[in-house]
Amino acid sequence: MTGPPGIKALAFDVFGTVVDWRSGVIRAGEELARERNLNVDWPAFADAWRGRYAPSMDRVRQGKLSWTNLDALHRASLDELLEEFGVGEFSEEEKDHLNKAWHRLDPWPDSVEGLLRLKERFIIAPLSNGNVALLTNMAKRAGLPWDLVLSAELVRRYKPDPETYLMVPDFLDLRPEEVAMVAAHPDDLRAAAGNGLKTVYVPRPLEWGPGNEAEPSDPAFDLVVEDFVELARELAA
Amino acid sequence: MTGPPGIKALAFDVFGTVVDWRSGVIRAGEELARERNLNVDWPAFADAWRGRYAPSMDRVRQGKLSWTNLDALHRASLDELLEEFGVGEFSEEEKDHLNKAWHRLDPWPDSVEGLLRLKERFIIAPLSNGNVALLTNMAKRAGLPWDLVLSAELVRRYKPDPETYLMVPDFLDLRPEEVAMVAAHPDDLRAAAGNGLKTVYVPRPLEWGPGNEAEPSDPAFDLVVEDFVELARELAA
Repeated sequence: MTGPPGIKALAFDVFGTVVDWRSGVIRAGEELARERNLNVDWPAFADAWRGRYAPSMDRVRQGKLSWTNLDALHRASLDELLEEFGVGEFSEEEKDHLNKAWHRLDPWPDSVEGLLRLKERFIIAPLSNGNVALLTNMAKRAGLPWDLVLSAELVRRYKPDPETYLMVPDFLDLRPEEVAMVAAHPDDLRAAAGNGLKTVYVPRPLEWGPGNEAEPSDPAFDLVVEDFVELARELAA
Repeated sequence: MTGPPGIKALAFDVFGTVVDWRSGVIRAGEELARERNLNVDWPAFADAWRGRYAPSMDRVRQGKLSWTNLDALHRASLDELLEEFGVGEFSEEEKDHLNKAWHRLDPWPDSVEGLLRLKERFIIAPLSNGNVALLTNMAKRAGLPWDLVLSAELVRRYKPDPETYLMVPDFLDLRPEEVAMVAAHPDDLRAAAGNGLKTVYVPRPLEWGPGNEAEPSDPAFDLVVEDFVELARELAA
């Protein structure tokens, strides 16, 4: 995949790949806590919140819970964690505002520049477990120039269910191999490849904060790049 | 609705409202016919093709035909019309290219400027019976700066079925009255209003070519504007 061999669309994982969820959640918590003079370990809170992400979706994926979008899953996890962390002071409005922190995440420094360049040559879309409102609000705030918003919510299935990956070629009237999945998570890419999509790995070693490492790459990935600007260069966009 | 009273998103009808389908279809036909030295009345052809639009969707709406997206409905109508007009010369590739004329329509002169201004203040999306690929390809070619693409295809229902209008507030986590439908077709607006959306009428007297008139407005519409630039001004965007 040096140069774009028939790739027509790029589908991006969002949390961790396009945006820095951890800093954004920590910031939202700190802002609220400051108003209330609360002392909460927000980095630990953010990690615990994200830790409940996959298990909460798995309950939907396994049919233990009927379709529930990510805002609602996030909110259920938030309510549990506020209790666990002993934070009982927030009003309903404040809890909703904190839950929507996931709509107000900042992009990594290369994300917008890279996407703008890639958009000139490819159809670009998120392919995220985030719900449509979340992805739309995030894009408007962060300036993510998506051509369209593709969300798990549209097919009521969460990644890594096949329906999610296949919605990209299906909705865009492309063959799976004309779509590349771009993600910071090897498991996401392996699932995409299992459904015929091309794969681009963008390690994001800061996803879980400083001092962590990205997961090892996989020789099966079609391309590995440092960031979206390098991706644009590699794809001659 | 002078100034935006709680409106957060604008949903646009596309064919006739945002883009000039008639000129685009005529142009595509003439280009193909010129290569083949054919003599076809393309304005009549375009009108006949569009004439089959509502009846073809009605077959899906009434359950006589299982879900079929607009590219496929357009193609079935095209095949019938080529026979009716006595055009037997086109190859499969040429027919597909002609069918995709609906992906290559030009915006009305005010559309892009108006949408860019409206996008600064509102979520903007098409709400069209066009399929996702059609709307995405059209937007990229014409520079329509949608925040997201909403299509009948996402809910497998065609306008004016309620599911189409309701997908806008549902996906965007808004109340219906926080969404305004913008259309050049009174029937579309009346159906939107019936589902709780606000309504903006933009008469497009040139939709069916010069010498025609737009349909009369309805005093029930929340706002009537001449074009999208006036709409941006009215909504202080």
